[in-house]
Formats: sequence, structure tokens, C-alpha cells
Amino acid sequence: MSRTQVPPATAKAVRVAAGDLVRVIDVEGGQVGDVFAFTEAGTGAELTEHHSAAHTRAAIDRLFPAVGEAFATDRRRPILTLVEDTSPGEHDMLIPACDPARYAALGAPGHRSCAVNLREALDELGLSFAGPTPQPINVFMRVPVAEDGRLSRLTASSRPGDAVTLRAEVDCVVVVSACPQDLVRISDADLSPLAIETVHNGGNPA
Amino acid sequence: MSRTQVPPATAKAVRVAAGDLVRVIDVEGGQVGDVFAFTEAGTGAELTEHHSAAHTRAAIDRLFPAVGEAFATDRRRPILTLVEDTSPGEHDMLIPACDPARYAALGAPGHRSCAVNLREALDELGLSFAGPTPQPINVFMRVPVAEDGRLSRLTASSRPGDAVTLRAEVDCVVVVSACPQDLVRISDADLSPLAIETVHNGGNPA
Repeated sequence: MSRTQVPPATAKAVRVAAGDLVRVIDVEGGQVGDVFAFTEAGTGAELTEHHSAAHTRAAIDRLFPAVGEAFATDRRRPILTLVEDTSPGEHDMLIPACDPARYAALGAPGHRSCAVNLREALDELGLSFAGPTPQPINVFMRVPVAEDGRLSRLTASSRPGDAVTLRAEVDCVVVVSACPQDLVRISDADLSPLAIETVHNGGNPA
Repeated sequence: MSRTQVPPATAKAVRVAAGDLVRVIDVEGGQVGDVFAFTEAGTGAELTEHHSAAHTRAAIDRLFPAVGEAFATDRRRPILTLVEDTSPGEHDMLIPACDPARYAALGAPGHRSCAVNLREALDELGLSFAGPTPQPINVFMRVPVAEDGRLSRLTASSRPGDAVTLRAEVDCVVVVSACPQDLVRISDADLSPLAIETVHNGGNPA
């Protein structure tokens, strides 16, 4: 097992092989994480196939996977399966990553963002992605949908140590950003760290 | 006023200026349309800024804009405002465009798709978009969301002549694909045409 700390308001990227487990842990509780995933073709540093929220919804006919269901890529291939969730189970896959334009509109130009964190974390591994920021898997983020389609944004209900465990279905890069959003109260008042644990499963995808 | 026919299972692209109206008409009824929009920077044939479903949801805190609300780009700028809707008002912004991978999985490789239609329609205007297929605005597509987050796919309820009218907030390219999906019954059994009407508003955005 390998553990990677994700300091508050930053992101880290990890490489995992098909069959490996990736656990995203809310160390202190109440902290939203933006998770991105890209397949690694093994042919270079330029990533192209990415987790796609829309293709995942189409594959499972649900707003967010249940335990046992898989997230899909923009090429409609399974990339990560949700295998365990010890949190209250409230996650979002409707809202984009925060980005410089979001903070400029909130009157805080130059604020850290998940979109920039993503690029920095990939760069640390010598990787890049040329496309627009993919829509993330927002773990521990509470965006309930009302019957009339209205969305609310509530503070994360995750407790210290709550975790989501994903199994890689293909060799991939997983990026976890401890969301820097402190102007809209989606996380607890004090931004806190996340942690990534990876468990090598010996190449056994089941 | 200018009217462009969109034959069944194909797409057309139109250029509009800020303030112009774009009407997407379900000519015979019961036909889903995939609508894409890109801003035109005026600097070349390579489009980059596109309508983003996720950024639109974040801007309006709703699954789909109400009349008077705007669709937003991946740079969080308004691109199209929904100004009128004579249909029953059931539209989707959760499901991706059908694409070759979708039809291959349905046992119909080589089937026409909205993703390929998009590229062909842009190409007809000498334009291109380098990124992955943006998530479309699926007009007349019925994907109700249950309280537990489950999605259903029902047949379009739009009647002959029903239309959605959009106002361009910036100079942009709007692509309308009459969805070729005939293996899952989201449109009536016989695929039918759509039409695009554009009304030049003399550069008056309000």
C-alpha cells in the first residue's frame, strides 16, 4: 500500500495499473475532492481518453454510480469501479471544476482552483492533457437535485476518515484535488487535506 | 429570416451574430435534436470555446435552463439564452451525443451518429473543433430524473412545429443534429427532419 498526502487546496496525481485499488480519504472530514481520471495508453506523455461524467451517466442510467458500478470514459470504456464508500454517500457529478473564471466572478482573481491544480499535478508526473478540463467526480460534494430540477449546494457531510474506494479497470492516472473553494461553503470553513491510498492488486482486475 | 432544413439523421451548422435568434423546430414532432454551440473568435477556423453542460448547470443551479436563462461556455460566458419554448418543455442536458462507440455497443457499427454529424456540419462551414465532442443540449429528449437519481429514457413528446428559440449572446456557430438514434426509442419510430430558423436582430443583444 502506498499513501499520498494531498495538502489543502492542492492536487496530486497517482498512476495505477488495471486491478489496483485507489482510495480517496477525507482525512479530517467535510472536505470536497475533485477526482479526474485518464487512461494511459503507454505511448507518451499526452493523455487523451478521460473520465466523462456524461458517458458515465449514460452507461449506468443514474446521476452517480452505486457501489459496484463503473465510471466510463469519453470512449465509453469503464475506467474506475466504485467498490466501497464509507461516507454518507453524497457525491456530485453535475458541477464543473472550479477555475480561474469562477474565482474572478466571485471577486477573487488568482485564487487557487481545481482546474489549475489538475494541470499542475499532471505536470509533476511529466504528463499533460490538451483538452478542456474534464468534468470531475466531486467526492463528498453535496448537490441535491429537487423534483423541479433545481440544484442546491450544501456543506460536505463526510466525517474524518470517510473514504471512497475505486478499482482501476485499465492502467490509468488518477488526480485528486482537495478543492480550494472557500468562498462558497461546500467544504467545512477550514480547508483540509485529503489522502490517496493505492493498493496494488497484482494485475488481477476482479 | 433564413430557414435551414436538417434532413433526418444529419446535422447543419449556422453562423449567428450576437443578438440574433436561432429557432430549432421539430417539423413533424417526436424528433430529438442535439444542439452544440461554439463562440467564434473571428481569428480562424479552429473553434475552442464551446457550450458546456456542466458550466451551464453551475451558472443557473438547475439541470436545464428555464425560459430567460442562459447556456454558458466552458469559460463561464453566456452563449445562448432560452427565450421561448413552445414544446412541452422536456429537454435533456445529462446524456452525451451518440457516437460510433455507442452504436458499436448496440450491434450497429458504422451507424450515423450525432458526434460524427457535428464534425461534418462544422466541416461544411470550413470550421473544426479539436477537443472531444462537447456534451450537447438535447432538445425534445425526455430523460426524467427519479428521486433516487435514476434516469429513464422516454420517447420525445414534442408535437409537429414545436420549437425552442435561443438568442445568441455572442457571435457563435450553432450546430443542430437530427439525432439518428433509432435503436433506442428516444424519437418516434420514423426519424424525421428538424429545421433551423435564424432571425437577424440588427446587433441588438437585448
